[in-house]
Formats: sequence, structure tokens, C-alpha cells
Amino acid sequence: MTNASSYREAGVDLEAQDQALARIKDLARSTFGPEVLADVGLFGGLFRPSLDGLREPVLVASADGVGTKLVVAKMAGDYSTVGVDLVNHCVNDILAQGARPLFFLDYVGAGVLEPEATVALVTGVRDGCRDNGCALLGGELAEMPGFYRAGDFELVGFIVGMVDRPLILDGGRVRPGDVLVGLPSSGLHTNGYSLARRILFERHDLALTDRLPGTEIGVGAALLQPHRSYLRSLAPILAHPGLHALAHVTGGGITDNLPRVLPSGTHARVRLGSWEEPALFRVLEKLGGLAADEMLRVFNMGVGMIAVVDPGALDEVLAALGGGRYRPFVIGSVEAGGSGVVYVRDAPGPAGQRE
Amino acid sequence: MTNASSYREAGVDLEAQDQALARIKDLARSTFGPEVLADVGLFGGLFRPSLDGLREPVLVASADGVGTKLVVAKMAGDYSTVGVDLVNHCVNDILAQGARPLFFLDYVGAGVLEPEATVALVTGVRDGCRDNGCALLGGELAEMPGFYRAGDFELVGFIVGMVDRPLILDGGRVRPGDVLVGLPSSGLHTNGYSLARRILFERHDLALTDRLPGTEIGVGAALLQPHRSYLRSLAPILAHPGLHALAHVTGGGITDNLPRVLPSGTHARVRLGSWEEPALFRVLEKLGGLAADEMLRVFNMGVGMIAVVDPGALDEVLAALGGGRYRPFVIGSVEAGGSGVVYVRDAPGPAGQRE
Repeated sequence: MTNASSYREAGVDLEAQDQALARIKDLARSTFGPEVLADVGLFGGLFRPSLDGLREPVLVASADGVGTKLVVAKMAGDYSTVGVDLVNHCVNDILAQGARPLFFLDYVGAGVLEPEATVALVTGVRDGCRDNGCALLGGELAEMPGFYRAGDFELVGFIVGMVDRPLILDGGRVRPGDVLVGLPSSGLHTNGYSLARRILFERHDLALTDRLPGTEIGVGAALLQPHRSYLRSLAPILAHPGLHALAHVTGGGITDNLPRVLPSGTHARVRLGSWEEPALFRVLEKLGGLAADEMLRVFNMGVGMIAVVDPGALDEVLAALGGGRYRPFVIGSVEAGGSGVVYVRDAPGPAGQRE
Repeated sequence: MTNASSYREAGVDLEAQDQALARIKDLARSTFGPEVLADVGLFGGLFRPSLDGLREPVLVASADGVGTKLVVAKMAGDYSTVGVDLVNHCVNDILAQGARPLFFLDYVGAGVLEPEATVALVTGVRDGCRDNGCALLGGELAEMPGFYRAGDFELVGFIVGMVDRPLILDGGRVRPGDVLVGLPSSGLHTNGYSLARRILFERHDLALTDRLPGTEIGVGAALLQPHRSYLRSLAPILAHPGLHALAHVTGGGITDNLPRVLPSGTHARVRLGSWEEPALFRVLEKLGGLAADEMLRVFNMGVGMIAVVDPGALDEVLAALGGGRYRPFVIGSVEAGGSGVVYVRDAPGPAGQRE
């Protein structure tokens, strides 16, 4: 490393990069199963998928970032959770097509790769990979002096999973009468942070250590709740013929994401009030003076994933999901005609009578 | 889109994002072959690889960026070539394991996604994908106001390829006596830009439109030469038993990358002067006052890929490579003992006698 002095002078600290790299290689190795053929260090990662029992193996891939949730992590000096966010977001994206994850790759970009922060970031990625049973097959650490501001970093993830072709979920089986089953989110997940930061930090000058107005929840804790993975909840029913589609509720909210799995000539009827909204959304609506339709188009509003289910399979699906980490709730149905999402609010009934 | 006003106020222009997205979807579709199962718009891209004739299909994946070559592209206002750089870099990384590309995903991050620049970036990615016969299966456009400076953008790529397990190149077949065959780079490719920018723009105050001192080549043209893909050159010999390994010469130069495919107890003997160095490297060495060993550890010095070849197969390999885009040159050999790379300089012989 001694001959790297001029390169370091230009802002690239190869030695620190190498130190972090060694620790990160160990983190990656801790996720390796027998499918990973080669040790880290080759130019590309090698993965031999098991094709047993698959009629026609199809690869499903997705790329994503965690948006300006990174800014909140930086404010909090807590780099341990955004890696989990990143993996879970990607896992849910391919899960929506019926795929289970095989492997993941990450990219960390920074002006200077501060070793502790970098290792913390990748530790989160590792934790997410282990929790979802996928290998952290490789990644890239990029030092780009003069490009990122001091302390800023970018975190990008790529996932590859597999699904047997007959089990692909693409919305093709969705029909009027299908039931919409929601799984609860933990908060914003990884979308809407630009607006949330503006409302909380700029307009209302809150600090991360403050309580969300009207609640006992810390602002920082609410904003850094990790994006949930629904893989374990949904894995038992991925091959169930009554599961017609899955919509991952990310940027664009229910309004934009649910229609992606609806056949033309149908719309979704979603009953507001049929699930419990995390307090953060009420606070953002109130402090931001946001209209209800806008809230529904920016935030997930407490619904992280929506399963579109054959009514005949509903009890079975609810029972299977109920055994998982997160309690499912019926939030609406698919109806003939129209397009998009129609929101209705149940008329308040007698106490205890609300669905 | 009309209800996105507050979100736009926070700096996220959903409409412009949607416009760019529509054009980008068309670009992606133009790369689709029959292996791509679903139209863009699902949560993850679907790819059914042909497994015909493969004994044990192995996936090879890599993630990469193009470093601060992005800064040069921004200075030049030319966003058309870095996408090609990105794809070719990734293609070469998995090629080094013997894999041919299946599909690619890109990530573009910016404070505000300026539609023209974004489309130009992805057009480059599309061009690279088409040239390498791989599908642009998906990607992510992330607007992160307050995170990136105005005009700044990040570009990250992710590639997945496949190789039959018996044909994996991992250096295991390399032995003393093997011949090192180089393929010429076009310039810096995607590494060493932080140092090059510092030397050319900060220390010597050159402009992109200036000539490189002592040459007729423009600074901007020299710096923006696209990273070459060696897929077409090497494809005809990937299954040749005399091809023992491939080293992609990226960050770390020949010094760091060639040893990645050398068995322990061997070293590489590389003859300086046995290939033609692009003028840019001589200029950087002179203007930067850099030592030769430092040059060799930061820059590729004109060698973009090194094939490690059985001497008995050398003529056949050279003939096959000679029919490709780039003229190969013999740059050295693998020797018993030691480790790493030993550089030697041929004693000047009679005119015309230099190898």
C-alpha cells in the first residue's frame, strides 16, 4: 500500500478501504450456503442455484435504494438499520412476483469510506440477508472524493431470486370478487422521506430525540423503523392457487402500487379504517396539512404488502398468515369496472361493530 | 399526478420522473429477447435463462459504478457514454469468470432527475446492453433532493451472467510457463479518475477542450473514451481448455488484479514496453510526477484484460483474438516462486527487433 501515496493524496485512502473490505468480506462469507461456489475476491460472485423440482426456473431481479432515509440515518449517526431496509425492500419486490431470494449484492458510495460507518452499513445488509436466507454474494465499495459530501453515502442493492414459471405472480389470475389482505408496515419503510423530513425537520423544527407530537414515540425511532420483509409470512402460501397476486406498497402508496396487479377493467375498493395506521402517518398528515388522497399516494399508510386472494381461499390464507410475524387484515376487494383504487370509509357503526 | 403537489414541493417532481420513466421503459424493451418474460412495470424483472447444453448452470454476478468518471461526464455535459462504461465494466467482471451476460439492472440517483440527462444516461446503458447481447431487465430511478448536489448523479450497475460449472475460470488451471496475453484498453476505462482529475484540472488547470500536452488528443476525448468490453473478443475461446484464466484490469491496475488469478507460489513476469501505452498515461506520469510503480498500481496502463494461456494453445488463442476488435499482445508469463507481479523492461535492442 505504500506506493499509493499520491492516490491517497487525491482523497482515496486505499488502506482504509482495504481494512473495511476485509471485514466486509467476512460479513459476506457469514451468509454463504453451499450454493456459493467461490470465495469473495474473484471478479464476480459465483452461485449455483438448486433447480430441483423446478419445471421452468425463472430468475427475478430488482434494484433499489433506500432514498433519503439515508439522511435520517446520518442525522442519527446510526448506520445499522438501513442495510436491513435495503435488503427487505428488494426481497419484497421479487416476492411480489412469487420469487424467493437467491443472492444479493450491495453498492456503497462515499466521498471517503469511513471504515466504521461502512462496516455498520454492510452489517445491516448482512443481517437482512441472513434473515431472508439469501447470500450476500458480492458488492462494491466506491470512494468518490469530491463527489459525495463529507459523511454522505449512497447505498444501493440488487437482488436475484427464482420462481418456477407456473407459480409466477403477475396479476393474471386476479378477478372481481378477490379479497385484498394487507400486512402491516412498521412505518414509512423506505418511501416518502423527502416529504416527511421537510414536514418534521424544516416546517416544525423537530429533533430526532423529540417525541412525535401527541404520542410517546421518538421521532428518530419512528423514522428509522426497518422496512419489513414479508417473505416468512408469505412463503407458506406462495404456491397456493388461491394467492392471485402480491403488491408491494412502496413509492406511490396503495394508489399507485395496487393497480400494477389489477387486470384492465377492474378496480380495487379499499376500506379506510379497516387497518391500524401507525401514529406517524396521523402526525405527518396533521403537521403537513396534507390531503387524504395525497397521503395515500406518497405513504404506505400502514400497509406494507397486499395479497390478492381468491375468496374461497381466504380463510386458509388468513390462517397461514396469522401464524407469521405480522397479523393480516382484510382491507377491501377487487371490483368489476373502472380502474385504479377507490377508497371508501366505513360509516361509523355501533361500538364494536366495525369490520 | 395532480395530487402530488406537496411531494413536488419537497423537491420530488413525480411528473418529470414519470416522463423519463416512460422513455426509459422503451429503451429497456429494445433490449428484450425471448428470455424476458414480463413487460417492464412489475416489481421485479423476469428472465428465463436457456439452460440447454449446460451440465451445471452457475450464475455469476457483479455490481459496479463508474467512479468519478461521472464528474468528467458532468463537466463535459455528455451523459451518453458513461452508461456504456458501466455495462462494459460489469460484462468484463463476469467474463473474467468465464460467464456470458444474461441481464443487467441500473440505478440512477440524483437530487432531481433531469429528464434529458437521465434518458441520455440510460440510453448509454441500453447501447452497452445491446452491444453485449444482454437484456436491460430493470432499474431504479431515485430522486433524492437535498442528498445529491444540483447536477450530480450516481450511476450503479448490476449484472448477472451464466457459465457452465466445468468452464468456470477461477485461476485454478494457471501454472508456471503460462503466457500472459493482453488486450488493449482505450484509456483509463473507469479507474483512476480521482487522481487524473487532480493532476489535469487542479495541478495543471487544463480544460476539457485543451490538448493533452505534447499530443493532438483532446483532454475530454481522452478521459471519456469508453471502457471496452472484451466479450466479443474472448467469446470464441471461453470454452478452450488452453484459456486458464482472465484478469480484468480495473482499480489497482495490473499489480493488484493479475495476482487474483495466480496460484500461490507463482508470480507474473510482465515486460514493460511490450505493448503500446495510450498517450494519456505518459502525460499523467509526467504532469503528476508519479513513480512507475504507482502508475502501475492505479492505472491499467493500456492493458484492459489479461488472458492467461497455456503455451501450447498460444498460437490458436492469438489467432482467435486477432480476428476480434482488439489486437492482442504477449506481455509476459507466469513463473514459479514468489508472488505478485515483477515488472521487467526489455533492454533496448536493434531497431525493429523489439518484441
